[in-house]
Amino acid sequence: MSDKIRVTVWGEYRHELKNEAVKKIYPDGMHTVIANGLARNAGIEVRTAILDEPEHGLTEEVLAETDVLTWWGHTAHGEVQDEIVERVRKHILEGMGLIVLHSGHFSKIFRSMMGTNCSLKWREVAEKERLWNLEPGHPITEGIGEYFEIPNTEMYGERFDIPTPDKLIFVSWFEGGEVFRSGCCWERGHGRIFYFRPGHETYPIFYNEQVMKIITNAVRWAKPRIRQPHTCPCVKAIETIPPKEVDFGKAGVQQDVKGA
Amino acid sequence: MSDKIRVTVWGEYRHELKNEAVKKIYPDGMHTVIANGLARNAGIEVRTAILDEPEHGLTEEVLAETDVLTWWGHTAHGEVQDEIVERVRKHILEGMGLIVLHSGHFSKIFRSMMGTNCSLKWREVAEKERLWNLEPGHPITEGIGEYFEIPNTEMYGERFDIPTPDKLIFVSWFEGGEVFRSGCCWERGHGRIFYFRPGHETYPIFYNEQVMKIITNAVRWAKPRIRQPHTCPCVKAIETIPPKEVDFGKAGVQQDVKGA
Amino acid sequence: MSDKIRVTVWGEYRHELKNEAVKKIYPDGMHTVIANGLARNAGIEVRTAILDEPEHGLTEEVLAETDVLTWWGHTAHGEVQDEIVERVRKHILEGMGLIVLHSGHFSKIFRSMMGTNCSLKWREVAEKERLWNLEPGHPITEGIGEYFEIPNTEMYGERFDIPTPDKLIFVSWFEGGEVFRSGCCWERGHGRIFYFRPGHETYPIFYNEQVMKIITNAVRWAKPRIRQPHTCPCVKAIETIPPKEVDFGKAGVQQDVKGA
Amino acid sequence: MSDKIRVTVWGEYRHELKNEAVKKIYPDGMHTVIANGLARNAGIEVRTAILDEPEHGLTEEVLAETDVLTWWGHTAHGEVQDEIVERVRKHILEGMGLIVLHSGHFSKIFRSMMGTNCSLKWREVAEKERLWNLEPGHPITEGIGEYFEIPNTEMYGERFDIPTPDKLIFVSWFEGGEVFRSGCCWERGHGRIFYFRPGHETYPIFYNEQVMKIITNAVRWAKPRIRQPHTCPCVKAIETIPPKEVDFGKAGVQQDVKGA
Repeated sequence: MSDKIRVTVWGEYRHELKNEAVKKIYPDGMHTVIANGLARNAGIEVRTAILDEPEHGLTEEVLAETDVLTWWGHTAHGEVQDEIVERVRKHILEGMGLIVLHSGHFSKIFRSMMGTNCSLKWREVAEKERLWNLEPGHPITEGIGEYFEIPNTEMYGERFDIPTPDKLIFVSWFEGGEVFRSGCCWERGHGRIFYFRPGHETYPIFYNEQVMKIITNAVRWAKPRIRQPHTCPCVKAIETIPPKEVDFGKAGVQQDVKGA
Repeated sequence: MSDKIRVTVWGEYRHELKNEAVKKIYPDGMHTVIANGLARNAGIEVRTAILDEPEHGLTEEVLAETDVLTWWGHTAHGEVQDEIVERVRKHILEGMGLIVLHSGHFSKIFRSMMGTNCSLKWREVAEKERLWNLEPGHPITEGIGEYFEIPNTEMYGERFDIPTPDKLIFVSWFEGGEVFRSGCCWERGHGRIFYFRPGHETYPIFYNEQVMKIITNAVRWAKPRIRQPHTCPCVKAIETIPPKEVDFGKAGVQQDVKGA
Repeated sequence: MSDKIRVTVWGEYRHELKNEAVKKIYPDGMHTVIANGLARNAGIEVRTAILDEPEHGLTEEVLAETDVLTWWGHTAHGEVQDEIVERVRKHILEGMGLIVLHSGHFSKIFRSMMGTNCSLKWREVAEKERLWNLEPGHPITEGIGEYFEIPNTEMYGERFDIPTPDKLIFVSWFEGGEVFRSGCCWERGHGRIFYFRPGHETYPIFYNEQVMKIITNAVRWAKPRIRQPHTCPCVKAIETIPPKEVDFGKAGVQQDVKGA
Repeated sequence: MSDKIRVTVWGEYRHELKNEAVKKIYPDGMHTVIANGLARNAGIEVRTAILDEPEHGLTEEVLAETDVLTWWGHTAHGEVQDEIVERVRKHILEGMGLIVLHSGHFSKIFRSMMGTNCSLKWREVAEKERLWNLEPGHPITEGIGEYFEIPNTEMYGERFDIPTPDKLIFVSWFEGGEVFRSGCCWERGHGRIFYFRPGHETYPIFYNEQVMKIITNAVRWAKPRIRQPHTCPCVKAIETIPPKEVDFGKAGVQQDVKGA
């Protein structure tokens, strides 16, 4: 595989068009700021895709050339076509990485990869969040200290309905009294998945250096190790199996049934 | 909750009607033999449901009264309606137990709970299987020794594309040279899930005492601890948060953008 | 095994003798209050053991009659004899349950079961702790709501150096800004282990109804499913293995060595 | 950290001196063959250390310069000094990688890292082993196909008494009828641990290309991400905590005690 990591930054790009406050922070969309933040790193190639493009910008060709997909969605999860979700899912299981951001917790793709509801508690009062680094040795936390803070954010609180993460990377402390598993790793099929909590649209969170450092690290971590379809083949025996005369005669079975 | 465990045994019930060899072994369907095997145990109440019943026999009423659902399907996974799968899934996430048997690995419900492809290798030459008990202290292996054998069975071989099980209970050795993770536990939402490999329709496997002992144990293990819907509520702060004047002025944000 | 759960509450019992503030709260020792709290529950039989008894009160006989051991220590971890630690460890691996409380995180027995350093951050300024319940369906949280609070406590903060828990039950929020994995489950050998953070000696924490409810639930959860020694036997083959003439002649090996 | 991975290959080096059959296969010791196998790879620097050297060759200096330690021992586990085990353990928890080979399952260092007994079943009749690759996307299986075989080996059978691996990489099929979790990954502290089953001294297993490929891959996987001591610091509050007047008067506590 190429040495370059090819990232597709997917954005819903609706709030930025309709909500004045969001438009002011992200005049070209959150996806553009995320893409710019990634593209300034050596070895990472970035393209973007948005909901309102044909096939949501996620054609078979685009996905085949994507090593890692980042996903931000919120208000229009339901508009993402099931067929495209299934296509993305297939690529993840074959090895493509997935980074799910903030309100993407309720996206079709994340919920279908997790198998759970992915529900949580929330509140939007611009409170402070402090993300504690539980795994200083993990590649996703490289360059991040013991904790970092986001001065104003939406709150997400437990219980977050997810499968137990393979590795829990960040736990958030919120000013209002809650906690949250804010950085979680899983492997599904041959693909790696990272959920990262920060990213509410009404705050300039994707301009935060630490947030972008973590997303960049996560992209590197989620780079495919292989890219391989799943098959369910009928295979020949490796060891010799003597021919078997199997007779499940009426008597034999009936005898067992009697026992029931 | 009731002291009785209320089990619904779901059967596809197609092979038994069309294939003479299967009909001979299971004249009233596999689901009937499984149901009988469970019903002989004190404290377990059993009903059955099949594909060709309205709503596949899995109405909201039936599921609301089901503590644990067992699932056997093979030839008609695609005929199970998505709407019913979603209904079953909701009940599992709220606390209902799920036992998936053999070829149910490719059922819509199992794949949607796992998030993976659930593919594997297979071969049908009536070979011998030996299931090794890795967790003698687990409730699912109560009464099972170090291993037990099934004299003639279809083979399933690794790689089985599943999320790492919370607990790996059985690993199978096959005469032809393969191995398989044959007993696997997961928790998803508030529900417990057990996958159990044995159960090929052309062999009298559900008459096997050990197999039925394990399914019975699994039913007891998967009994709901709670039954609770998932919600995503907006909540009030517990701690006092001082009023915030948040101003993400153009200057501030643009300054960050410049850095990009 | 008996229907009764036989619990041994182990206490270091030093602070209570030397520190006036602690003596005032726990005149008969913390172990007595924990034991009383457990003994008021039907189906639980309790005895206590302390550091300054012969063999720390943990003779082979006592352990053989103990289903679940609870452990509180702090100032004298180093005085616990290695031989007794090894004895306790053997019983846990054979099936005995272990509940480790608060400063027991640095006990020899907990560190030897975890294999890690078990270090953390701490601070003692009587701050508020709020324990969030991440697993409302788990037996250990039965009767506990979404969260509960301890008005004054010592703080423990991440990173807590433990192996990833099999199940993370509680995460704490602290007034001073930290978070902590306060309730963690593991299985080791045939035994179950629960670490529970609350319990600082200078606060009346073991009089707290919620705390004692959780310890009681944990005792029920940790009850042995089996009690079985570990052996490393030489076993006969189950399948027929043809006699083998194995000859690793000099030539053959040298040939390989050449490749190196 | 250096780009080179500095490996120390530790060998017990006793069988090779005393047993003619082993001496014939490994005239310079197994550690030499393992070291040669690793050293032929670019980017890996190797040194060896043996039991009978002072401090078993594992001085503080050596360990400080070791990125990954491989361990083979069998007949003399008891002769490894506890003090050296503790030193190695400290380095692993701080970030050094550990690869445990074959009979190393019963070494002091492996058992102390796992916290379990690490017992298993065994048999030595030169039977065939087939190792199935469960994780084709994992760096440890790079270049390894679906399975590989060892024509003659000692058998290890389940139940292997280990904590559930973070990732299960290989499962073995044995000619005589057993299965075994032959490749297992864990993280402890900041260090990575890989257990790999093959390596019996009476067969030329460390000349096997696949075996050495896997050990080489494991060395790369286990390379330290950080190297950092564990501390247990008293820390200042980040948030302002108002001064507290805590009074646990006799009355208050007694009132609670009455309830008991």
